[in-house]
Amino acid sequence: MATRTQSRGQQRATAAAAQFAPIVIEGVTPELDCGRYPVKRVVGDACAVAASIFKDGHDLLAARVRFRGPNDDGWRYAPMAYDFASDRWSGAFPLDRIGRWTFTVEGWTDRFGTWHRDLEKKRGAGQDVSVELLEGAELIDAAARRAKFGAARSALARAVTALRATEAPLSDRVATALTPEVIELMQAHAAPTDLTTYSRELAITVDRRRAGFASWYELFPRSQGSTPGKHGTFADAERRLPRLAELGFDVIYLPPIHPIGHTFRKGKNNSLQATPDDVGSPWAIGNEHGGHTAIEPRLGTIEDFDRFVARANELGMEVALDYALQCSPDHPWVKEHPEWFTIRPDGTIQYAENPPKKYQDIYPLNFWTSERAELWNACRDVFLYWIEHGVKTFRVDNPHTKPFSFWEWCIGEVRRQHPDVVFLSEAFTRPSKLLNLAKLGFSQSYTYFTWKNSARELREFMTEFSRPEVLDYYRGNLFANTPDILHEFLQHGGRPAFRLRLLLAGTLSPLYGIYSGYELCENVAVRPGSEEYLNSEKYEIRVRDYEAPGNLNGEIQLLNRIRREQSALQRADNLTFFRSDNDAILCYRKAGAEGEGSGWRDADLLITVNLDPHHAQATMVYVPIDAMGIGPDESYAVHDLLTGARYTWRGSRNFVLLDPAQQPGHVLRVER
Amino acid sequence: MATRTQSRGQQRATAAAAQFAPIVIEGVTPELDCGRYPVKRVVGDACAVAASIFKDGHDLLAARVRFRGPNDDGWRYAPMAYDFASDRWSGAFPLDRIGRWTFTVEGWTDRFGTWHRDLEKKRGAGQDVSVELLEGAELIDAAARRAKFGAARSALARAVTALRATEAPLSDRVATALTPEVIELMQAHAAPTDLTTYSRELAITVDRRRAGFASWYELFPRSQGSTPGKHGTFADAERRLPRLAELGFDVIYLPPIHPIGHTFRKGKNNSLQATPDDVGSPWAIGNEHGGHTAIEPRLGTIEDFDRFVARANELGMEVALDYALQCSPDHPWVKEHPEWFTIRPDGTIQYAENPPKKYQDIYPLNFWTSERAELWNACRDVFLYWIEHGVKTFRVDNPHTKPFSFWEWCIGEVRRQHPDVVFLSEAFTRPSKLLNLAKLGFSQSYTYFTWKNSARELREFMTEFSRPEVLDYYRGNLFANTPDILHEFLQHGGRPAFRLRLLLAGTLSPLYGIYSGYELCENVAVRPGSEEYLNSEKYEIRVRDYEAPGNLNGEIQLLNRIRREQSALQRADNLTFFRSDNDAILCYRKAGAEGEGSGWRDADLLITVNLDPHHAQATMVYVPIDAMGIGPDESYAVHDLLTGARYTWRGSRNFVLLDPAQQPGHVLRVER
Repeated sequence: MATRTQSRGQQRATAAAAQFAPIVIEGVTPELDCGRYPVKRVVGDACAVAASIFKDGHDLLAARVRFRGPNDDGWRYAPMAYDFASDRWSGAFPLDRIGRWTFTVEGWTDRFGTWHRDLEKKRGAGQDVSVELLEGAELIDAAARRAKFGAARSALARAVTALRATEAPLSDRVATALTPEVIELMQAHAAPTDLTTYSRELAITVDRRRAGFASWYELFPRSQGSTPGKHGTFADAERRLPRLAELGFDVIYLPPIHPIGHTFRKGKNNSLQATPDDVGSPWAIGNEHGGHTAIEPRLGTIEDFDRFVARANELGMEVALDYALQCSPDHPWVKEHPEWFTIRPDGTIQYAENPPKKYQDIYPLNFWTSERAELWNACRDVFLYWIEHGVKTFRVDNPHTKPFSFWEWCIGEVRRQHPDVVFLSEAFTRPSKLLNLAKLGFSQSYTYFTWKNSARELREFMTEFSRPEVLDYYRGNLFANTPDILHEFLQHGGRPAFRLRLLLAGTLSPLYGIYSGYELCENVAVRPGSEEYLNSEKYEIRVRDYEAPGNLNGEIQLLNRIRREQSALQRADNLTFFRSDNDAILCYRKAGAEGEGSGWRDADLLITVNLDPHHAQATMVYVPIDAMGIGPDESYAVHDLLTGARYTWRGSRNFVLLDPAQQPGHVLRVER
Repeated sequence: MATRTQSRGQQRATAAAAQFAPIVIEGVTPELDCGRYPVKRVVGDACAVAASIFKDGHDLLAARVRFRGPNDDGWRYAPMAYDFASDRWSGAFPLDRIGRWTFTVEGWTDRFGTWHRDLEKKRGAGQDVSVELLEGAELIDAAARRAKFGAARSALARAVTALRATEAPLSDRVATALTPEVIELMQAHAAPTDLTTYSRELAITVDRRRAGFASWYELFPRSQGSTPGKHGTFADAERRLPRLAELGFDVIYLPPIHPIGHTFRKGKNNSLQATPDDVGSPWAIGNEHGGHTAIEPRLGTIEDFDRFVARANELGMEVALDYALQCSPDHPWVKEHPEWFTIRPDGTIQYAENPPKKYQDIYPLNFWTSERAELWNACRDVFLYWIEHGVKTFRVDNPHTKPFSFWEWCIGEVRRQHPDVVFLSEAFTRPSKLLNLAKLGFSQSYTYFTWKNSARELREFMTEFSRPEVLDYYRGNLFANTPDILHEFLQHGGRPAFRLRLLLAGTLSPLYGIYSGYELCENVAVRPGSEEYLNSEKYEIRVRDYEAPGNLNGEIQLLNRIRREQSALQRADNLTFFRSDNDAILCYRKAGAEGEGSGWRDADLLITVNLDPHHAQATMVYVPIDAMGIGPDESYAVHDLLTGARYTWRGSRNFVLLDPAQQPGHVLRVER
């Protein structure tokens, strides 16, 4: 299948139209891959637009953003202003609705403004401007003819008459004609000369706020019963919700809740031999009870699920489902649509594999089947089914093993009807693939965070993914653990490791999450060198006492409260690292937003985390006081939001001591 | 006039074609402004192409560059290879002809390679691969059907038979089928699965080598006579050519050679009152003897001009003309085509101005006249006329005061017929305009070099304009002086200042130039604070003794010889600065090119220049030995190409002492 490529001929035809534009408009931001993909924002954001706009010579230009919100009938406009230092024009418009927005940039020659500026310069130099006044009269006359309202027309006409009154003294003619009223009327009524539009319309995906700021909690509903070994239900899981709301979570994410295949079902600890009691992996989806739109009977009914969702919503939370596009050999699709799978020369269906590994409990779909449209529609309809049942967030399993163009199509289809749906991409793969999934439509993405544990690793990783051009479309959700990833740092670092990684996840990023068991510091791997949990919940039921001694509930509750109170923790574009003398202590600033021109400003947070879970560490840190507008010898109070302690710091260089037995770090609110 | 903007609908239609591509191709380089403009190269360059190419899953991919040279009948192909570290594919093709090239990138799934790799993995793990062999047979069978030659077809068919010989042992089937011959045949004959083409064709302007590497010399032919005050001729100028060739110049650039207007003619030192003897400014083009295609009679005839050009060519040099699109009030166009100018309400023609400044000796053209096509064609025809007379290089006066779209059109028109023509943009303006002129087609550009005199200024300026994405289209020509710019650094720095600025210009950039008088260290400004020359040649004849004592002829000749001998000075993409302890000494490396994989390498140059024309300066310098593959304690010889001296340096830190009374700097060739 070949992509259509524009021939040079076609491209020249387009260029020809642009070629004779009197004004050049280029370098428009935000723009992602030449407009191939939309950028992302959340509702309530202002969309700041900038561009290089110029023409030959010395004429004054004017420019505006032309934009349109979802379902808007026509274009709206926001003025742009020129900044000499950056040689750029900029403007902004409010994104007050969820959905797809488009915009472009227009520039034109401000002929009247140019004439008026030059007139004043010439008069200042004592030059004869009599011909200039006649030129101005022509400009105003043209505007008068365009004015719809009589009052405007006649005011402009009077100015024309005054300018043309050659018998009167020049200065009288100017004073009579160029009143503030006439100048304002000219801005409204003069035709934009040389009007040039940027060559592309650009799109913005505007999400709800929770797409960009949320605390996630992952739980297996089947483990939420109270009797060890007994299959839990949605009703059991529902009873956990008030406590999770109390802890401050926003999103409760459930691994697949569908019937689980029997064929090649995995036993405990991923063994190839399951016993009859084994519950299997929820990711081996489908059996005689149904597939991706069915519920595992032992969890309850669709009504139980609806009740679970409703209860979460009542508590201010929402439920996220797992979307894993693969089928157990017992999935109804295998019988109903064998053509959606790959049939091997021996007539069997191709199971999943990454040679020499085999995953015989799973059949991958053949997305390029001759029945592509049917299959893709069915996959889309799975989303639509759960959306009908109140689910507006999906965590998508391994999207990088399905065609990128499928996701772009499917997410587009879903969001066209439901622009409030959020998609989290679970792709641990090369950066180009990971980023492309975000470009093509995923609202959030898993990250490499779990594997970044040293100060250098964390700085490099967060800096790379915090570049403005990446933040335009990529939102990292920092999970501290997942059912697949128990990093050795947690295996060996004890409770202090769990505390410090929790603090990092929740303060480095507005999006973070934990998988249940984290709050109990569960840290036993299935074997040395593995990141898999021993007795992984992926293959068995694990009933826990979530209030067991040593739990991190207090820490989690405090962190989530601080996140809700401190607006600096709710954005991703305000992170900068600062230096310490000890690389065991990571230092970063989350800058408070500035109210434009109003002097109002959210508090800055200075965060220092001891990355060593075993030893107390001390260091001098170097606060970026220049960026914060603090003088080299100036004192300022910092208030530790974790402990309530207050310190007085002075200038850039200050002392920090962190004992992991006490506190993993400081979250210092700068108070001035 | 409005540019056509693609509606979202049109853009979606294009996107729809791309949307279902199985393979993603993005981040293609070189690409300038989404393919809006071509990038630039010179003939003999290899065009290196890189791209991110990926699809879902674990399949092996393959990719190639598809390219076409000027007048090529069809596409040619260059293979691309994947580099894991950068996650990028790259390939290259030779640019062996001048003109416009196009290319794009194609990727596909290497199904046979994937199958073969997986087969080996499975066999290595001792798995049963009998069904895999049947799958392989299908792939080879399909290729056999595509093979045009009987030999290939039957070799492939034999492999199919072997793989399907189910009665034979597996390892025999594999060994018989997968011979090196069959593997090679599969590369040639297997249909590329999932073939995907990048969404744009990109263009490359390939210039002759002198567009990127040349030494320029500017002279006023009317000053080349031997009698002070007497108007020189082309014949006089011709007599200067052998000496200029001896000095090593490549391009002799002449200010306008056309008849000069009488009306408001400027007198000496730009005075508003000319005497009858005053020769006027050559940029006030046109009088009763003709306009842009005529020659000032006192310079000679067109035959004299032709002879001048021919003589320069004989000497290995070429002649560049000034192209200044403006008219004196006496220009024939004013009478013949008043509609090409702006008529004011009083019936007069608008003269040039930048209020409150007036330039009444010049009428600007109205490029947006209703007779636009006629005017633009006439402007193009001026180029074509001089090209007929052997001129292949034009220095364009103030292009930023004429429409950018005019230049794009006009340069395109000229280069379509004469792809060897070189255009130098004389735009001293905001960076966005300066760079856009280079994007739209100017081969070379004047720069801010004259105003960059401190080490910090020079480093920042050269670094900014040496970024690879800028070098893709922008070639700075570093003029050390011009008839308009005698910088105060030269006014006050004496001969040492002229020597050091010459050395900087000629070693920082493969393109540089001087305006005559520089070699005589002429440094008297018309008044303090002005950058204009006293008794500027723009308004009068200046006869000089070019061999006068104190001249820089020896220095110029040596510099130009070194430039021709050292390939590192002939490229712009190999400049890096290195540190010294004394900011009066600027240090930079011009890296030698590496022959790919051959071990061959051009010599590196280490250049140190004392920017202080008044005092000797000494410093430790820090040679970037890591980048040069020199060990921290390793010795190496450096050979000063200016003096012939040889020094032994060791490691990074070495000593430099430069006395402006002796030498302005070192040009050290690293010899190992």
